[in-house]
This record gives sequence, structure tokens and C-alpha cells, in this order.
Amino acid sequence: DIVLAAAARFGKGPLAGQKVLLTAGPTREFLDPVRFISNPSTGKMGLALAEAARTMGAQVTVVLGPVGAVDRTGLEVVDVVSAEEMAREVLARVREADWFIASAAVSDWRPETRAPQKVKKGEKPEVLTLVRTPDVLAEASRLVAGGPRRPVLVGFAAETERVLEHAREKLERKGLDAIVANDVTVAGAGFGTETNQVSVLTRAGTRQDLSGTKRDVARSILELLLSLAPAPARHVPPGR
Amino acid sequence: DIVLAAAARFGKGPLAGQKVLLTAGPTREFLDPVRFISNPSTGKMGLALAEAARTMGAQVTVVLGPVGAVDRTGLEVVDVVSAEEMAREVLARVREADWFIASAAVSDWRPETRAPQKVKKGEKPEVLTLVRTPDVLAEASRLVAGGPRRPVLVGFAAETERVLEHAREKLERKGLDAIVANDVTVAGAGFGTETNQVSVLTRAGTRQDLSGTKRDVARSILELLLSLAPAPARHVPPGR
Repeated sequence: DIVLAAAARFGKGPLAGQKVLLTAGPTREFLDPVRFISNPSTGKMGLALAEAARTMGAQVTVVLGPVGAVDRTGLEVVDVVSAEEMAREVLARVREADWFIASAAVSDWRPETRAPQKVKKGEKPEVLTLVRTPDVLAEASRLVAGGPRRPVLVGFAAETERVLEHAREKLERKGLDAIVANDVTVAGAGFGTETNQVSVLTRAGTRQDLSGTKRDVARSILELLLSLAPAPARHVPPGR
Repeated sequence: DIVLAAAARFGKGPLAGQKVLLTAGPTREFLDPVRFISNPSTGKMGLALAEAARTMGAQVTVVLGPVGAVDRTGLEVVDVVSAEEMAREVLARVREADWFIASAAVSDWRPETRAPQKVKKGEKPEVLTLVRTPDVLAEASRLVAGGPRRPVLVGFAAETERVLEHAREKLERKGLDAIVANDVTVAGAGFGTETNQVSVLTRAGTRQDLSGTKRDVARSILELLLSLAPAPARHVPPGR
């Protein structure tokens, strides 16, 4: 840790000179000024990844959903609320990134309309019409596909059943290099916990199971990804 | 402060020997294991009231929605997630309380059904059917109406327009002694902020505007309520 921290300070470390773009936390999709659809993500896993990447020398930008007060030391943080805002901020940055790690729990739907004032109880909606939000990771993947410097693309899959199957399908459909699969029904894993238990699946077909504190799991995920990644030209900082 | 803290330690203070039941925070109404309807309440105002009541000598129970890590020193905290759970825990306790202060932002609706597994994106719901949740404060008010020791009932109204009008209507409809009205569209007031700006309306028709840190506003609300309350027999601890 001391070695890595020192490395980061002097721009060294396995991710030195590289730009890591991360999403973390939930999104909120409001139906009126005071009510929303969301999920229990607290951003802990994503922020642990951000911190681990920073310690490994990377320049880290976190596009962060609403998670309350968190430690932002050494991170560039872009605060967003909705999936649409998250997509916009990611798409504006992903072409400059060497890595894009999508750990946010993005709402898949939003209410079709957002009432300008608090809806009173007596009134409707007894039916809430939902529309799909942008798929941030799929859109980012499409944007960089075939571009001059395609970042390494890493997704997350928070599932409650057939976890590996769903994760593998997502990896392929979205054109990812790896995906971190999470069974959020397991105690001590998933939303809000201090620990996690994940399986990292790669495009090459490998699978590695990791568990521990979110901090340790974050470090292990990055080390695993680094070991898998080829060392393509895009990873050499300009000017070398 | 030192005087009040000492008072609390020795069971003295203006609320000594009294039981204060409080609700705080949001509720979450899940549509599947990982998605819910909620609101931006962080529980700060309710927990400030709990702390102020404790400092004034009260025995405080907080029925608390999901708010993450908070200081629970000296408080009995009952953790709940949904409006239904909050109603159950409140109704089990309100008949023993001398004060019931309903500061939680209870979801007014919940999804009609809760899917047992995470709903996949390809599938519905494109329409989410909502049903009303229990009105915790109205049910508590009905339960204690005409009972041997009716607690002082205090509600909160978080509004975005016609704030005082909505609050007054709520006070009367639910049979409250007072209501704390909050315009959540004002900067530095409402959800998640450290400060607040409220109007306290009473059954007697008075109105008092208060602003400051949530801690100061909490203290002022309790002092105002104490000054308004008659000193009925129910407020004398048994055995005196």
C-alpha cells in the first residue's frame, strides 16, 4: 500500500498516465419533485474501484449518482441524478478514456412524465407509465466501437438469479471486455454492504471468483483486468 | 446546552419522564428485489428532533426508514423499510406515547406487486400499477382518538406549492395538534439540507415561522409545542 501510494504520488504504478472513467451509485428517476424510482446502491463498490485505480496511478473521473457524503479525495467527481444525465456525462468523456468501468446501478426505467408539483394523494397516478432510460454502457460501447482508441470496457451485473448466465449475456450483447457479476441476494454482497463477493467474467471466457472487503475486491478486480489486458498502443501515454 | 444535557442525564428537563415516539427518514416500496419507489428524505430533521427531545429529558423511540449510517446515541431506534412496516411499528407503540411526531416522508403509493426476482429489461413493466400505502399518521390518530391518554400529535407537510393551505388541510383532516410545513422547493430547506425553514401551524390557528440549522429548528419546534400544550394529566409520569 505504501509503495502504491508513493507510486501514485509520483505518477507511477500500473495505471500511471491512464485515464479511468467510472460510474458509481444509483440513479433517481423522478415522477414529481419529491418522488422517484431508484435502487439501494450506495456507490461503495464503485468508489472503492476509483480509489484503487487512483492508488495504481490512474487519473480517475467518477460520474456519481446521488449517494450522500462520500470521500472524494483525489478524484474528479461529476455529480448526476438521472440515467439521462449519467449517459450525457459519460458519452462526453468515454472517447478520451483508457478504461471505462460502469459500476453504477442505473435505473432501467423512468416515469414517462415528471409532474411539476407534488402529486397529491387523492389524485392519480394509480398507474405509472414507465419508459426505458438510456443504456449508458451499451451507448458508450457503440460510441467507441471501431474508434481510434477504444477503452477497455468493464460492466457490472447485479442479479438475483441465474447470475453468471445473465452476466455472460450482457457481456456479449454490450461488447464488453469483462463483466463483474454480483448476486445481490447473498448476505455480505451487493448493495450497501462493506464486503462483496463477485465473479469476473472476461470476453476470453475466463471466470475468477473474488471476495472480501469492497476495498480488497476492488484492488483484485483491477489487478485481474490489468493481467488480462494486452498492452496495446493506446495504453502508452502520449509523448513516450 | 450544558444545562439541558445535565438535565437529561438526571431525568430532568421539560420533557422528563415523557415518551416521545418519532418517525424519520423515507420509506422504500419495492417493485422487485432491487428497485423501489422512494423520496430524497435523509432523516436529518427527524433525528434532530429526536436528539432535541432526548436533551430535554424525554425517552425517545425513533421508527426510522432506510437512511444509511446515523448517530443513534441515546435513542431507541426501530429500523423499517416500507410504509407498511412503519405503520405496524408505530401503531404498536403510539398508545403508550405522550408525543407522536411524524416527520418521516412516507411513500404514499407502493407497487401493487413485488416481483420475486429482478425484472429483466426486455420485459415489462412498462406500466406500474400503484396502490395506496397506509397513512401512518392518520391511522395513529384514529387509534388514539378518545383513548385514555391521547398523545400530542404532530405532523409534517413537505409541499411544493400552496404549502400553508395544504398543511392546514392535513392538520384538520388528520386531527393533529400541530403541523410543521416545509416548502421543499426553497434552497436551504427540505430534503438532505443541513438547514431548514418551516412554519408551525397549530390546531388553535397560530402560525410561527422558524429557520436555522435543523438542530436549532428542532429545538425551537419542541419549545413551541411545549409552550402550546396544556399540562394535562397524561403528561405527569405515573407514580407522582
